[in-house]
Amino acid sequence: MFADSITPPEGTTVKAAIFHDRKNITIDDVPAPELRPGAVAIDVAWCGICGTDLHEYLEGPIFIPSTGHPHPLTGEAQPVTMGHEFSGTVTALGAGVTDLNVGDGVVVEPYVVCGDCELCAAGNYNLCTRMGFIGLAGGGGGLSEKVVVDQRWVHPVGDIPLDQAALIEPLAVGHHAFVRSGARAGDVAFVGGAGPIGLLLAAVLKAEGLTVIISEPSVARKTMARTTGVADHVLDPATDDVVARVRELTGGAGADVAFECTSVNAVLDQLLDAVKPAGVVVNVSIWGAPATIDMQKVVLKEIDLRGTIAYVNDHPATIKLVQDGKVDLAPFITARIALDDLLDEGIDTLVNRNDTAVKILVHP
Amino acid sequence: MFADSITPPEGTTVKAAIFHDRKNITIDDVPAPELRPGAVAIDVAWCGICGTDLHEYLEGPIFIPSTGHPHPLTGEAQPVTMGHEFSGTVTALGAGVTDLNVGDGVVVEPYVVCGDCELCAAGNYNLCTRMGFIGLAGGGGGLSEKVVVDQRWVHPVGDIPLDQAALIEPLAVGHHAFVRSGARAGDVAFVGGAGPIGLLLAAVLKAEGLTVIISEPSVARKTMARTTGVADHVLDPATDDVVARVRELTGGAGADVAFECTSVNAVLDQLLDAVKPAGVVVNVSIWGAPATIDMQKVVLKEIDLRGTIAYVNDHPATIKLVQDGKVDLAPFITARIALDDLLDEGIDTLVNRNDTAVKILVHP
Repeated sequence: MFADSITPPEGTTVKAAIFHDRKNITIDDVPAPELRPGAVAIDVAWCGICGTDLHEYLEGPIFIPSTGHPHPLTGEAQPVTMGHEFSGTVTALGAGVTDLNVGDGVVVEPYVVCGDCELCAAGNYNLCTRMGFIGLAGGGGGLSEKVVVDQRWVHPVGDIPLDQAALIEPLAVGHHAFVRSGARAGDVAFVGGAGPIGLLLAAVLKAEGLTVIISEPSVARKTMARTTGVADHVLDPATDDVVARVRELTGGAGADVAFECTSVNAVLDQLLDAVKPAGVVVNVSIWGAPATIDMQKVVLKEIDLRGTIAYVNDHPATIKLVQDGKVDLAPFITARIALDDLLDEGIDTLVNRNDTAVKILVHP
Repeated sequence: MFADSITPPEGTTVKAAIFHDRKNITIDDVPAPELRPGAVAIDVAWCGICGTDLHEYLEGPIFIPSTGHPHPLTGEAQPVTMGHEFSGTVTALGAGVTDLNVGDGVVVEPYVVCGDCELCAAGNYNLCTRMGFIGLAGGGGGLSEKVVVDQRWVHPVGDIPLDQAALIEPLAVGHHAFVRSGARAGDVAFVGGAGPIGLLLAAVLKAEGLTVIISEPSVARKTMARTTGVADHVLDPATDDVVARVRELTGGAGADVAFECTSVNAVLDQLLDAVKPAGVVVNVSIWGAPATIDMQKVVLKEIDLRGTIAYVNDHPATIKLVQDGKVDLAPFITARIALDDLLDEGIDTLVNRNDTAVKILVHP
């Protein structure tokens, strides 16, 4: 149904980044998406390149449905349009769409969910067993001139500049990790890793009134953590005894909450040591290999180790943090490129000089 | 201070099980404990043998302070009196003790804590950084004719028979694991392992109105899980596809909560698979080696993996479950032996024929 309904009007095409297979992404002219009832037509303004996109390029298809295994909701498999961190301008409203206007600046919460499983019914749509993402699972994507998205997933951003708005999706990942942690203003958070997600999570934590300690070996990322002001203390695991420093900075108690943003086992170990008894460790990163955990730390300190995936009902609060000036997204935009330069100036930079870039935005 | 204050009255001795070193426990006549202000003198009726005691015997000293490393609060190191799962009768009250009477049947919450650290102040005395247990850390123990315990840790049990009352300590471990899980009446719990803690935890879960599925390969333990009625469904991981069965029994959803009571990695893996998305896995067992965890399961299902240690403010509710007839502890008592038979009929049975016994009670 979903896949059929985006059949394009005859002859119309848009330029889009298409994932054909591992290390085979091309910029193609593809049929334009067709507006349907309940959906919104969007001209994409900016789309960020996500670590997930890099993993798909280097090792995929991972989240992208492989040939012969179409996504159960979109019916699509590779090749698919990429891009799930995007902003744009509403160009047309499908039948029945209210509360949005042509010309509105919007961001998309890029979900494909069934809407009727027990998890969707309970409001945990991020855990829908058939969950996919626009830009990975089919249904178009943000690395495309145009996209059509069901109104449910379209969030107006008011006067937030659309380049910054493209970062609201990863910021919402940080917001959801914060919500999952149960942390409150006044708490001390220890963030392991200052990559894009670690930095944006730290920005949410600062905005929510926490004290933030971040640990990161890369010089470029440490500098970003300092200059953006998202961290009160920037530690370097190569030169600091990170656990001892967190204890010092918390009067011996340990951090109230800790966030794993690296999928590096040694970092997870440090978080378990640096968090206080009865503290919470949230795993934000995606792991390619099993983790080894000293369960005695989890037991004797009664640690809660919590997973977090994407976001669920986080976009309104996340957008408000930016609108209220509590998070400034501008410093995290480290490059702006054209869609035609996606591979040379985008993916290549992130693969080979990853730590020099936070967020590269693509203008389709 | 604590160690000094139990200096015995001249010449009086009691019989007690003394841990000298690994595989060296003897029944000795030792100085009787002296009553002190604020404390209660107890004639021990029954004391259970705990898995922790076995680990101390086979691999210790573990929790027992080793020679040269006295416990910071008791000042004691090996040799120490053993036994921390015990009931008895009050024989004398120290100055200032109220709300207890000579002749009362009581159990002891066998803690040694500092009382003034941040964790004690916050009520998390089970996480006190200097926490120890009576019967391991010094301060006497329940494998002794007499013990003197500060009133704070003495809980009257009313008309609960004192043999059953000796099981309230491990039952409180189960109660605390239940509290940590956040489970509620009507939830489905999956318990991995039907050893003493798994069975007593299951008893608490049933009493609290949960549906209980338990998994256990031992014939004797499976039988105990069935005959005591603590489990609605008893699975055998050697013959059942445990994860598939839990899904079947929950209409495809998975268990709401799961409890790891084996320290076997394959069981932990099953719990992560068998729990529903947004579910909770509580680790109750003590691990001697690191665990390997597929973090992707924790992440994509947003699982909470929670540690639990001992109990904190659990004794009153635990005692009430027994007084109200919601938990029948009698079937879990599989033997009653004299203190002189501790090694031959107690520890030897548990070491060599572990699965045939649930709780062996020692009468000092």
